[in-house]
Amino acid sequence: MTLEEKVAQMLQLVASYFIGSGEDSQITGPMESLGITEETVAQAGTALGLGGAAKIIQVQENHMKNDRLGIPLIFMADIIHGYKTIFPVPLAIGSSWDQELAEQSAAIAAKESAVSGLHVTFAPMVDLVRDPRWGRVMESTGEDSYLNSLFARAFVRGFQGEDLTNDFSRVAACVKHFAAYGAGEGGREYNTVDLSERQLREYYFPAYKAALEEGCEMVMTSFNTVHGSPATGNKPLMRGVLREEWGFDGVLISDWGAVIELIAHGVAEDEKAAALLAVNAGVDIEMMTSCYPKFLPELVRSGQVDEALIDEAVLRILTLKNKLGLFENPLRGADPEAEREVVYCDEHRAAARKLASKSAVLLKNSGILPLEADRKLALIGPFAQSTDILGPWAWNGAEGNIATLEEAFKGKIEASNLLVAQGSGIDTVTTGQLEEALRTAAQADVIVLALGESSPMSGEGGSRADITLPKAQLQLIAHLRTLDKPMVTILFNGRPLDLHGVYDQVDALLEAWFPGSEGALAIADIIFGAVNPSGRLSMSFPQAVGQIPVYYNHFNTGRPKKASEPENRYASQYLDIPNEPLYPFGFGLSYTEFEYSQMTLSSEEMNPQSALEVKVTLTNKGVLAGEEVVQLYIRDITGEVVRPVKELKGYSKVLLQPGESKQVSFIVTEEQLRYHHSDLSFTSDAGEFAVFVGANSRDAEEKRFRLQK
Amino acid sequence: MTLEEKVAQMLQLVASYFIGSGEDSQITGPMESLGITEETVAQAGTALGLGGAAKIIQVQENHMKNDRLGIPLIFMADIIHGYKTIFPVPLAIGSSWDQELAEQSAAIAAKESAVSGLHVTFAPMVDLVRDPRWGRVMESTGEDSYLNSLFARAFVRGFQGEDLTNDFSRVAACVKHFAAYGAGEGGREYNTVDLSERQLREYYFPAYKAALEEGCEMVMTSFNTVHGSPATGNKPLMRGVLREEWGFDGVLISDWGAVIELIAHGVAEDEKAAALLAVNAGVDIEMMTSCYPKFLPELVRSGQVDEALIDEAVLRILTLKNKLGLFENPLRGADPEAEREVVYCDEHRAAARKLASKSAVLLKNSGILPLEADRKLALIGPFAQSTDILGPWAWNGAEGNIATLEEAFKGKIEASNLLVAQGSGIDTVTTGQLEEALRTAAQADVIVLALGESSPMSGEGGSRADITLPKAQLQLIAHLRTLDKPMVTILFNGRPLDLHGVYDQVDALLEAWFPGSEGALAIADIIFGAVNPSGRLSMSFPQAVGQIPVYYNHFNTGRPKKASEPENRYASQYLDIPNEPLYPFGFGLSYTEFEYSQMTLSSEEMNPQSALEVKVTLTNKGVLAGEEVVQLYIRDITGEVVRPVKELKGYSKVLLQPGESKQVSFIVTEEQLRYHHSDLSFTSDAGEFAVFVGANSRDAEEKRFRLQK
Repeated sequence: MTLEEKVAQMLQLVASYFIGSGEDSQITGPMESLGITEETVAQAGTALGLGGAAKIIQVQENHMKNDRLGIPLIFMADIIHGYKTIFPVPLAIGSSWDQELAEQSAAIAAKESAVSGLHVTFAPMVDLVRDPRWGRVMESTGEDSYLNSLFARAFVRGFQGEDLTNDFSRVAACVKHFAAYGAGEGGREYNTVDLSERQLREYYFPAYKAALEEGCEMVMTSFNTVHGSPATGNKPLMRGVLREEWGFDGVLISDWGAVIELIAHGVAEDEKAAALLAVNAGVDIEMMTSCYPKFLPELVRSGQVDEALIDEAVLRILTLKNKLGLFENPLRGADPEAEREVVYCDEHRAAARKLASKSAVLLKNSGILPLEADRKLALIGPFAQSTDILGPWAWNGAEGNIATLEEAFKGKIEASNLLVAQGSGIDTVTTGQLEEALRTAAQADVIVLALGESSPMSGEGGSRADITLPKAQLQLIAHLRTLDKPMVTILFNGRPLDLHGVYDQVDALLEAWFPGSEGALAIADIIFGAVNPSGRLSMSFPQAVGQIPVYYNHFNTGRPKKASEPENRYASQYLDIPNEPLYPFGFGLSYTEFEYSQMTLSSEEMNPQSALEVKVTLTNKGVLAGEEVVQLYIRDITGEVVRPVKELKGYSKVLLQPGESKQVSFIVTEEQLRYHHSDLSFTSDAGEFAVFVGANSRDAEEKRFRLQK
Repeated sequence: MTLEEKVAQMLQLVASYFIGSGEDSQITGPMESLGITEETVAQAGTALGLGGAAKIIQVQENHMKNDRLGIPLIFMADIIHGYKTIFPVPLAIGSSWDQELAEQSAAIAAKESAVSGLHVTFAPMVDLVRDPRWGRVMESTGEDSYLNSLFARAFVRGFQGEDLTNDFSRVAACVKHFAAYGAGEGGREYNTVDLSERQLREYYFPAYKAALEEGCEMVMTSFNTVHGSPATGNKPLMRGVLREEWGFDGVLISDWGAVIELIAHGVAEDEKAAALLAVNAGVDIEMMTSCYPKFLPELVRSGQVDEALIDEAVLRILTLKNKLGLFENPLRGADPEAEREVVYCDEHRAAARKLASKSAVLLKNSGILPLEADRKLALIGPFAQSTDILGPWAWNGAEGNIATLEEAFKGKIEASNLLVAQGSGIDTVTTGQLEEALRTAAQADVIVLALGESSPMSGEGGSRADITLPKAQLQLIAHLRTLDKPMVTILFNGRPLDLHGVYDQVDALLEAWFPGSEGALAIADIIFGAVNPSGRLSMSFPQAVGQIPVYYNHFNTGRPKKASEPENRYASQYLDIPNEPLYPFGFGLSYTEFEYSQMTLSSEEMNPQSALEVKVTLTNKGVLAGEEVVQLYIRDITGEVVRPVKELKGYSKVLLQPGESKQVSFIVTEEQLRYHHSDLSFTSDAGEFAVFVGANSRDAEEKRFRLQK
């Protein structure tokens, strides 16, 4: 390969470049603006964002004709929570606490993507997030590194399967965004990140590492700085941690434009300097800008870049192509006929419906839910008839094809029992809408409000400084409250919200998130009792935006607020709100009631050789079958550095029939007690630990044990 | 000295312990609860919080009688912004941008303290703060490390003077809180701090270091963690940075109870372990808990602590006593007669009045200010007749003695032209109050609202999650707005506020802060034009609490929001508010108008040997004399790590008569261009720089130069 051919492998362009190229193509506008030639396009290694088997087959065949070396393209795209069958957003999947269904969702997304011609998805996103202002919080599974790591693994298994080379129904995964993109200051998109090295390693790194341990083929750089250097040019992070420490030998790709953005960050003077920083950091593929093709050949020839770096990058890219089976099968899974059968098929839709129903979180219930089918309902709100329930990152989603909540409700109750009014827009409301809503509600036994955020209010570029429901909708609630009728609210949204003005006004509150293409049906299943809700929050819901960051695994501080000293001013607290979130991590209600009893430890002491068993008896005290997520937390009472007041270390989803009891058991090993010390060593300390078992991070029984070493 | 005698020197107790001790004293309750004996109290090295020459003389004389070795006590106290003559809170002093007056305020506080018997003040507090939720923001001079460093030096000079040993009108200073107490998560008091080492060194350390370079005798540990270890037990921070790197050989004291709080933090199992951590970290004095006296002797005898550590600590404490001249003069400046003459004397009050008038910041003015003396005024609001204008940390303040705003206004205008109504409480309002306010306002030409936060709403333990004015006061504004009369608002408060509902409702807005004992008089000086306001914010006022942290010297990010692309979603921004604060760092209006012109650089290139001169012509275009704060900012366009979009590097306060012009000049040297690189080295880089001169961090003209190396 010539140097230029090698460097072209390191370039990724959007599909439109390839559509235009070929025998009868000419240099198009975008090529010129990138300053690259048709030849470079013809030699480019990978393509971004195309979908559909027929188109991809055409581009690949055309590419193979024009590429001197016959190296196939890899087609990559952002398949985040489903290709056309759209699953709930990842934050909702996090609330399912269900690794199997998460894996299945990724496997289905992979299958639909693969038959549509894609080879790689830019997922899973595993960024730990403690700030609900950030729009991309919907793309993460939440605030806990343990839970995020489990989901990271499940998604990677689902996307990649066992054998990428031969199983063409799978795609390679690309874990992102390395590292700590979720910690942007003020929750503002693309903002500065500043964390200590310990904090990075203890909380932010584990989920990326878990994805890699599961065999994830690719890694994407993050937009933010880490220790003052943008990730995409950060050699200690990429070559040091990712490659040397963790042994990652797969393909590292920049996020969209992140190489050229080294200039705006102020660490590269120009595109040449940006290319130099990124290649030195070990970024193999530059996404959508052309610093590499324009300057790497010159940098190599002038001796500023060792050609070995280029060879190494190209080898990784070619190795991935080989692993995907592309040299033998450049078209791989792309199959227009299979595409028509597989994509958005009934089986996939059923899986999406199931996961959506497992992801919804019941936050409040006076007993009104599930609704009886014979009551007269007024379904009111901007989401009553909306199909904007797929959430961000659903660019192939079948929005035109999906059921609205109104339609889903009609599958459950007599049409004559269902009255519908819009009530308000997302952030607008008219007197006419309010009057109509009131008239409609006045005729009903129960008001069901379908409220929330539109998709663009979260997702990339969707940071909000105010995380309440839009005022128009709060006004609608207050207006209907005057009727003094039972009121149920269903929320569609992509982030933890400040729910003042909502939770305190209604009799029942169901967090549906953006539940995906079958979401309305799934929510109807819950509202009318076909499914007993079992979702649990994987992220705290704050009391107010002024409480951010609020997360369950915080440190104790030197002056923790004590319930026994409510009047003590000199405690770590706010004057105006509690320290605790409105709804804690792990929280979620059920239509039945679970009782915890007889928590026991097998011993009050353990050592590295002897594990401890923690047992608890769970009883379904209600009249409906239901699933409980039994949660295990541990606290290291005294550490070499400060340790969280609780850390999730295990959980078990348990289905119990009415009246049924089950003993749930957890094994605690010394390995679970390790953490990063001040010297960054990852070990455990002898001493006292608290272990908690319960229904969420707030409500859990505590026992103590000692680790002997 | 016996080991117990040495260790007793390392203990600090509040004065009540000493009042009770002596010939006819017995073990008191607090002694028992601390688990120490009368003997330990008799040998203790320092006392906290006593004030008044007579009392201190009594305690010291009594102590000298009982102490076998005849070692005098040091009396220390929190004299933060004045002893009895209360100056504006430090955040207000920061807004004065006036080092000389700041120094004078500290010198006066020292003089009043010294004649009252004190030897050390726990000031200056120099914590950099970017979060106005934090209550102690009022105690800091703001968000900029350069400005904080200048004030740190001024305060230290003012407190200590030139010769502590012979000048008994001065006291030793104790810079606090080392380190980074201002960076607590969520602005919550005593909360966790997590920062990278670079961020710590670049932004948080400089002001502490500046105080030490100015000769500050003592340092106080902070309550928070630094790199996961509470500062009070943090050996790398205290022995590593403070003692070894910076060569500090003075006395290091824990904050109140911070040694025993190592247990709550979860890094010490018990008091003995807490004592071990603190002594190893190099904490010389334990404030108000007794881990040292109870366990240090045993730790030394068992060989766990080298007695050399104790000797070293005691030597530092005795050295300070010697430096204070206490061995020759145990009573030092304590003098009941001088106390009566000096404390709260007219000269001191005049200085406080002057500084208060220089600290107030005019945020908005339609032209209504200064008020004409013959207009009929309605002075309304909870601060119209309040003496709660001293702010937190004014425990000796003469609240009973000071003028209210009503009284101060009566010194300026005919009593018949002044109508007064309370309008509301701080956070309560009645219909009666609103009606009375409306009736009162209806009779006036101009409404002057005196609003704000009560003292306990800021200060230690005073964190707020909501930083708007209390709703009751916003309601009062809205109510009076209906009259459509000119409305002026004066704010008394201890933090940057979200001023929506205020600034947009009024014709003029003056930020008075907590202006101190002469504050009402100073504000009246401004309102009626005797003083032309010249204060400039030393901290950004956010658009909303959801924008925090917002500070002027942020990084650019890879996708900065561009004015030219208002619709670009994929920029670092919020959907609902601008990135810019409501009022930027450096902002403040005057009654006159200043014009900047003819900005020139002496060269477009400089090198480490050749400084650059930046000149600008400032003209007073108005009809009143006034002071402008001409500000110099620099940006390093490309760094080895990311660099702020602007950094304050100099400023000049310029007084101009109407129509007068002056050329203002700044010298830029290579030293000012240095910063901490990724390897923590502190150097400059060759390359392009932008230099800005203007009225605040937002409105400044830019020119470019290159540094050659």
